[in-house]
Amino acid sequence: MKKNVLKKFQKIVGKGNCFISPEETSGYCFDAFAKSNVFPEVVVAPENAECIPEIIRLCNEENLAVVTRGAGTNLSGGTLPFEGSCVLLTTKLNKIKEINKADHYAVVEAGVITTDIANAAVKAGLFYPPDPGSMNISTVGGNVAENAGGLRGLKYGVTKDYLMGLTLFDAEANKVIGGGRTVKQVTGFNLPGLFAGSEGLLGIMTEFVLKLIPPPESSRSMLVIYENILKACDTVSEIIAENILPATMELMDNFTIKTVEEATAIGLPVDAGALLLLEIDGHHVQVADEFEKVKYICEKNGGHLKTAEDEESKNKIWEARRKALSSLARLKPTLILEDATVPRSKISSMMSSIMDISRRYEITIGTFGHAGDGNLHPTILTDKRDKEEMLRVEKAVDDIFSVALNLGGTLSGEHGVGTAKAKYLEMEYGSGTVKFMKNLKKGVDAGNVLNPGKMGL
Amino acid sequence: MKKNVLKKFQKIVGKGNCFISPEETSGYCFDAFAKSNVFPEVVVAPENAECIPEIIRLCNEENLAVVTRGAGTNLSGGTLPFEGSCVLLTTKLNKIKEINKADHYAVVEAGVITTDIANAAVKAGLFYPPDPGSMNISTVGGNVAENAGGLRGLKYGVTKDYLMGLTLFDAEANKVIGGGRTVKQVTGFNLPGLFAGSEGLLGIMTEFVLKLIPPPESSRSMLVIYENILKACDTVSEIIAENILPATMELMDNFTIKTVEEATAIGLPVDAGALLLLEIDGHHVQVADEFEKVKYICEKNGGHLKTAEDEESKNKIWEARRKALSSLARLKPTLILEDATVPRSKISSMMSSIMDISRRYEITIGTFGHAGDGNLHPTILTDKRDKEEMLRVEKAVDDIFSVALNLGGTLSGEHGVGTAKAKYLEMEYGSGTVKFMKNLKKGVDAGNVLNPGKMGL
Ligand SMILES: Cc1cc2nc3c(=O)[nH]c(=O)nc-3n(C[C@H](O)[C@H](O)[C@H](O)COP(=O)(O)OP(=O)(O)OC[C@H]3O[C@@H](n4cnc5c(N)ncnc54)[C@H](O)[C@@H]3O)c2cc1C
Ligand SMILES: Cc1cc2nc3c(=O)[nH]c(=O)nc-3n(C[C@H](O)[C@H](O)[C@H](O)COP(=O)(O)OP(=O)(O)OC[C@H]3O[C@@H](n4cnc5c(N)ncnc54)[C@H](O)[C@@H]3O)c2cc1C
Repeated sequence: MKKNVLKKFQKIVGKGNCFISPEETSGYCFDAFAKSNVFPEVVVAPENAECIPEIIRLCNEENLAVVTRGAGTNLSGGTLPFEGSCVLLTTKLNKIKEINKADHYAVVEAGVITTDIANAAVKAGLFYPPDPGSMNISTVGGNVAENAGGLRGLKYGVTKDYLMGLTLFDAEANKVIGGGRTVKQVTGFNLPGLFAGSEGLLGIMTEFVLKLIPPPESSRSMLVIYENILKACDTVSEIIAENILPATMELMDNFTIKTVEEATAIGLPVDAGALLLLEIDGHHVQVADEFEKVKYICEKNGGHLKTAEDEESKNKIWEARRKALSSLARLKPTLILEDATVPRSKISSMMSSIMDISRRYEITIGTFGHAGDGNLHPTILTDKRDKEEMLRVEKAVDDIFSVALNLGGTLSGEHGVGTAKAKYLEMEYGSGTVKFMKNLKKGVDAGNVLNPGKMGL
Repeated sequence: MKKNVLKKFQKIVGKGNCFISPEETSGYCFDAFAKSNVFPEVVVAPENAECIPEIIRLCNEENLAVVTRGAGTNLSGGTLPFEGSCVLLTTKLNKIKEINKADHYAVVEAGVITTDIANAAVKAGLFYPPDPGSMNISTVGGNVAENAGGLRGLKYGVTKDYLMGLTLFDAEANKVIGGGRTVKQVTGFNLPGLFAGSEGLLGIMTEFVLKLIPPPESSRSMLVIYENILKACDTVSEIIAENILPATMELMDNFTIKTVEEATAIGLPVDAGALLLLEIDGHHVQVADEFEKVKYICEKNGGHLKTAEDEESKNKIWEARRKALSSLARLKPTLILEDATVPRSKISSMMSSIMDISRRYEITIGTFGHAGDGNLHPTILTDKRDKEEMLRVEKAVDDIFSVALNLGGTLSGEHGVGTAKAKYLEMEYGSGTVKFMKNLKKGVDAGNVLNPGKMGL
């Protein structure tokens, strides 16, 4: 990077918030999906949103692509840098500006850590439900840009369901505002809707108004042990068909159970074919009523149900689930995490296809996920240096996608497209849709400055 | 219209579905907001979605703007035709294609009447909450394009909260698909989010996947009579601040009460300063608990509470509310219905400003609305032939907008921008936002074919 350009960046964000040496920028060559050999030209970490238009203008002048980055925990390569790019780090935009108890909303900057919002809400006697497994490190900006889900998606929805308003800067450095502090707002296009899941392609978001809700009065967590994983899947579909919406229904297969237990020694039943982790919440009488119904359906399907009698055993149940991905990741050099999602009555079919595929291609797949959302994470453990196995892995991934689409599902329930699934977008939605999305991107970013090429757009 | 062009339209949609004579097209010169003197060149009513790309191509060739129209009940002039336009009527796309009990969704064509969806859901033991006052005639396409709210918005949200997937044709006649049949879907941009509230500017929507939910187990309706309307408003804010979310909290001022009673003889208390119509629902024990709390807050604020003891008195309560707009409309030749929405703790301030404005400009304003959403409908009764009064009315409207924005609110909570509020868009969101929305529109509709100029874009 030319000295005079660097000086300009330094003038905008301050010397200490501007990085160009390979030692400093190498930390931004990877995200939770992959590591790239490409280094960004510069990494800037603005301390306030007001200077972002200047950064955008300078990047436009200097022909630098802008990669907005929160915590970099995305699982689709959405923050991998390009040759000649500026990584714009939002982590210093980390103020919780307002928690409004009377009107049930929070105003937060884009770099605030998800857990901090959840905790601030609790302090005010309110509840911010979106709880991705990464919530202790992910930023809310990343959550919005990926429309992140979580363990409570089943009953409470995902990030977009809590996004009331936002402020952003577009590729021309215009300040753009959408939605606001009211629960209904239809002046102009629904920009909160458009930006949920926009993966850094349409604007740099700096601030959000997030909906908070009254917390449930009580809750009950359960662990249900199955011999047969397909019976666990049937349980999930039957509970929903009975019009019961638990806050959470998470699934783990035998391989995942064993792996988590090895890593954590929490005391999981390592011989079980599958575990369901359930939580129901609401008014205490409703919880008691639903508990009886849920118990009946679980046991009818051969499940053995244990309830968490205290906070500690409750926390253990959720710790087990949260550790699934990291435990699996320890086993083999390469982990390929899929995100196939199907209508909830189809998860049993999806699960049995995943088992078939694993056998057919002789590859190791551990499966866990948000079963209540129909969202499974078949996780392939492999080694990318093993060329021959990687060929089989690729075929397996294609097969998983085909099955999910054939069951009326989607390639991605929550991890997004990024670079990981860019080539599959058309497979799911057809060429007309891709054309429309390209037109949209071009309309608001004619110079292709913001995360160019991601999502295949 | 040239004969050969007419023939082409007839070939696409069938002779009986194509109208050009002024007698036939005059019915499409108005909507619930206004009547225009401009006639569309042609009105087409396709019986299937497959022929829509051909209509779009022909309109492009013949330089005709396309105005998509459902039932024409919008309150913002969104379906008023242009010189040289084709009105595309969706009312014959009226099939309910699927009600999926297991996975809690419905697949419907864009011209289906809202009530028909609600009824089909009930039949399947499920619940479709969005219930705009116009639901017996409005189409779901219009509901989505306006992101319509309803009486249950407070607890259950608005149309966008039930939009899982959609199919549309864009200005280039591409078939575009967004979302789908899964509760989570993040492959590509969030098109269901973008199209909620798109007012016919971005594409012609033909089909939706709508979320259905388990119905509440029980409910309880109440009518609360107040001397002082500001105390009714305070009640609303206090109930929400107590973390209770009733399904509905509707407000009517004295003027509206009297007018509805004159029109319907339902038996409303015509001397009351205001009425609150409340409904709480959920598990029966929760309903009983919340009822006590709500009663306490109402009475503390001087409200006199009557519960509906049977279905008939319950229906009467809701009939009174649904008749508010039509009753007011009978009084004077011109009705100007506003849609100001503020954070819910601010409705008392908003209401008192509306009363001030009414006094200051010596104009008649009846106010009712979705108080629980902070969404009031101050309704100005006037006569547009009275030039002098209309000047005062204009100033009053400007003042209502300023107050709403100053209270952290919005110009429109549910009726949209259309032609009615086109010039105010920038006032709410600033020039950068308008620029972004124009770029977006241009990107996906370079020829400005779809509802050009509406929303001021
Ligand atoms: C252990 C683990 C568990 C996980 N569990 C879940 C889970 O349960 N559910 C789930 O949905 N995901 C999960 N994820 C994925 C990931 O954590 C989420 O996608 C998260 O929302 C990303 O946040 P981030 O701050 O790390 O964003 P980043 O990875 O930094 O960025 C993600 C994308 O958002 C864009 N972006 C970030 N900030 C902004 C901004 N301010 N303006 C515009 N664009 C921006 C980036 O350009 C990029 O395209 C998990 C990841 C890990 C590693
Ligand atoms: C008595 C009365 C009560 C009302 N109560 C409410 C209420 O409680 N809440 C509320 O929100 N609104 C209410 N409204 C306003 C109105 O009914 C809603 O906006 C409704 O959603 C409009 O539906 P429609 O089928 O009449 O749409 P139309 O008026 O025909 O069209 C509305 C807009 O949508 C576009 N559009 C329609 N169909 C499509 C499609 N298939 N694809 C793309 N664009 C399309 C049109 O171009 C236009 O811009 C009320 C209106 C009346 C007259």
